[in-house]
Amino acid sequence: MTDQTRIANPALRGKVMPAEAAAALIKPNTVVGMSGFTGSGYPKAVPQALAKRIEREQAAGRPFRVQVWTGASTGPELDGALAKVNGIELRLPYNSDPISREKINRGEMEYLDMHLSQVAPMAWQGFLGELDTAVIEVSGIRADGALVPSSSVGNNKTWLDRARQVIIEVNRWQNAALEGMHDIYYGTALPPNRLPIPLVRPDDRIGETSFRCDPAKIVAVVETDAPDRNAPFEAPDDTARAIAGHLLEFFSHEVAKSRLPATLLPLQSGVGNVANAVLGGLVDGPFHDMTSYTEVIQDGMIDLLDSGRLRIASATAFSLSPDAAASINARMASFRDKMILRPQEISNHPELIRRLGCIAMNGLIEADIYGNVNSTHLMGSRIMNGIGGSGDFARNAFISVFMAPSVKKGGKISAIVPHASHVDHITQDVQVIVTEQGLADLRGLSPKQRAKVIIENCAHPSYRPALQDYYKRALQGSYGLQTPTLLTEALAWHQRFIDTGSML
Amino acid sequence: MTDQTRIANPALRGKVMPAEAAAALIKPNTVVGMSGFTGSGYPKAVPQALAKRIEREQAAGRPFRVQVWTGASTGPELDGALAKVNGIELRLPYNSDPISREKINRGEMEYLDMHLSQVAPMAWQGFLGELDTAVIEVSGIRADGALVPSSSVGNNKTWLDRARQVIIEVNRWQNAALEGMHDIYYGTALPPNRLPIPLVRPDDRIGETSFRCDPAKIVAVVETDAPDRNAPFEAPDDTARAIAGHLLEFFSHEVAKSRLPATLLPLQSGVGNVANAVLGGLVDGPFHDMTSYTEVIQDGMIDLLDSGRLRIASATAFSLSPDAAASINARMASFRDKMILRPQEISNHPELIRRLGCIAMNGLIEADIYGNVNSTHLMGSRIMNGIGGSGDFARNAFISVFMAPSVKKGGKISAIVPHASHVDHITQDVQVIVTEQGLADLRGLSPKQRAKVIIENCAHPSYRPALQDYYKRALQGSYGLQTPTLLTEALAWHQRFIDTGSML
Repeated sequence: MTDQTRIANPALRGKVMPAEAAAALIKPNTVVGMSGFTGSGYPKAVPQALAKRIEREQAAGRPFRVQVWTGASTGPELDGALAKVNGIELRLPYNSDPISREKINRGEMEYLDMHLSQVAPMAWQGFLGELDTAVIEVSGIRADGALVPSSSVGNNKTWLDRARQVIIEVNRWQNAALEGMHDIYYGTALPPNRLPIPLVRPDDRIGETSFRCDPAKIVAVVETDAPDRNAPFEAPDDTARAIAGHLLEFFSHEVAKSRLPATLLPLQSGVGNVANAVLGGLVDGPFHDMTSYTEVIQDGMIDLLDSGRLRIASATAFSLSPDAAASINARMASFRDKMILRPQEISNHPELIRRLGCIAMNGLIEADIYGNVNSTHLMGSRIMNGIGGSGDFARNAFISVFMAPSVKKGGKISAIVPHASHVDHITQDVQVIVTEQGLADLRGLSPKQRAKVIIENCAHPSYRPALQDYYKRALQGSYGLQTPTLLTEALAWHQRFIDTGSML
Repeated sequence: MTDQTRIANPALRGKVMPAEAAAALIKPNTVVGMSGFTGSGYPKAVPQALAKRIEREQAAGRPFRVQVWTGASTGPELDGALAKVNGIELRLPYNSDPISREKINRGEMEYLDMHLSQVAPMAWQGFLGELDTAVIEVSGIRADGALVPSSSVGNNKTWLDRARQVIIEVNRWQNAALEGMHDIYYGTALPPNRLPIPLVRPDDRIGETSFRCDPAKIVAVVETDAPDRNAPFEAPDDTARAIAGHLLEFFSHEVAKSRLPATLLPLQSGVGNVANAVLGGLVDGPFHDMTSYTEVIQDGMIDLLDSGRLRIASATAFSLSPDAAASINARMASFRDKMILRPQEISNHPELIRRLGCIAMNGLIEADIYGNVNSTHLMGSRIMNGIGGSGDFARNAFISVFMAPSVKKGGKISAIVPHASHVDHITQDVQVIVTEQGLADLRGLSPKQRAKVIIENCAHPSYRPALQDYYKRALQGSYGLQTPTLLTEALAWHQRFIDTGSML
């Protein structure tokens, strides 16, 4: 029985069908643009039906794979299901699904790891190819056919604009009170027709609350009632709290020096327990009237809103624990003037991040002694997730912070290494590094000055002497002394880990 | 005899003094912000007088060094003279002076290599320290005390605003007809007070034609009559012409595919004979009504303006050969509506580069098989010049091109290597690589797809088999297969060059 409240447009009610029938409309070896960002707002039914169809086709000897474009990471019902049946030929722009990760690292799936702000404009540029089908989860369809977004916006506007055909999933699980929370900007263009984006505060609304979509392109509407992939909250441990403590002390110091306003500047924060520890620390800290201009609204951001310390949270998606999701679902309407969800090309836009002067806080896999940061590749070759929005924020931030525990795997991996095995963020874009050992303020320092501070303040004591020894010998044996490097040893720690299971 | 035309303000005429007297006003161990960008518009007399003073003081056992901030590279009268006497403690944000380079690479001078767009905003942030003295070359002083810029703008506005005291060099050699060509934007601010920059075409003028400066801060005016460091034009050779040919063919292809307008998009171009070959090729190519939004106006850009193919050249500085300088000096007034010189924070602003959709064309030292580009460090440690504006442009461009001959040093160095020894531009920011061997269009390709195209299209035949062999073995022996890497061999080519003088 079709939900007339959720699907208020009669013509589109006429296109309601089972997921299997919708999935049958997707042609083999085409490109599918799906909704979804950090495990929220992704389609739950059609990808699973598509995976079953692909499995049947392949079993019958008929090759069937698709390219999958999304906002960022999705859930097991999408990436997991399709990867499991070997149904994804190429995946962009971000992945955190374990099955997909394994396929990618075995060389069985191509993966295009992109700056999240660039996905929509590059799709418009045309070189990524034609987008055949968009599969978009919404929370409802208005009487006029406008689509009310669900728990993420991502690249949905662009997929709807660019796709030849559109399949809509209307998810009854998504809170109807989300309506009005989104801000879909329709002012983008290809050059030479681009104009300034008229956003000067994280609170500004510059767009519409729903997606436009030509009804003639909508070939199927599928009803679902399924939760987002809400992962349990990882509580901050002592290490995360120590990292947060160093960072909050730094913020207080910068405010005291009048280099930051007392309200700080718009916060961008990654996810995970370190990020949650920082946000938790801000609940009890000295700062008021804060704002955030970030990618995702996670548990810590909700707590900060609830505390009254954070005035507004602007993002492109939710990324919540089941508890936090239940908590905000019970009172969604009260958040309507405190949260804004935007397309990811706006939430992550270099123009806006630079203008607002965001404080960027992102995690790292490893940093070298000069402050080059690797956010993506284990031992230089094995992809973890992807660069995501970290490059959008780090390069354009007022202060760009990277943080992580100083060791991982029980001390067998050092987060501070002689030479990054892969570089995602160059020294120019890395201004502060924090571990539980301490904070390195690298602003205004040359590479050699940076090395001393990073080794002394951030490295774990079990690796510090080896780093000091490497650096000292590099000062003797390096080809040039701007960035002293011993090429034969630079990547030896990583090789040692591969060979012995430990960098020690 | 003071030139009353060039120094029309009577009060400032009263501050005219010899360079030695002006240099005596600079305190030891302070920060001096100088004008100058790519060898143009730098002060010619005061730095030399300062160098002599430093030499005398040091000989008398009194330590005397300064921090030198500029726009970009200057000339031998500034960087060369001060470096020679060991007078520079720290240099930012860019250097191409050979004496300074040698000191930096011997570890005798600290060098802070910065994104050129970020220098002014970071100086305002305050963490770089106090700016004590600004030494700025101008072409004249108006009756009202406003300063008419000379052949570069660079960070002059910011140095004048921030410095405790100001020393002005009025250079009679600079063409008086430069007046009116500059566009000094006074709308910048620190966050949270930043606003959209109202520039939507390379032709737009959004500021003033002169610098404001509180006359009370001006402690000295020095008259000079000295040419910029105009280096002789390096004529394109066959290799440069082959690179240009591949790139122009690519542009035509993109226009044919409707992925670029027939007028192209605003061109950003580095300097050197490859860049000049590209610009030379555009003189004879099929494109009309072109524009440029770039850092410097070099010989090739003048030819392109003269040909009528280029409508407007927006930059922050000239970088000309003596012949080209003489040529434009003879008819400067006729260029006034065809050239605009802006502060480097505007010429290189990410907001504007992204909005305009620049086509970025920059050189490289090396690229690895995945398309990570090293623009700065020889063998991973020895700085060549610096990142300059390449990061500002490459990340925000509509199409980001890097180009170089496939081999250097008579074939002993390959520009394509297994693993970049230093990374300035990550794969996400490198969309096209061109050598005389061919062009690799990397847009939309995963790392493994990129490797094949780069090796096949760009590597020199004398290195191609070794790269293919490395890649093939990396596909077998790598820890992960997203970016196949053999850690023990990744930097071996560079070590071989250090050991034997050749990568072969």
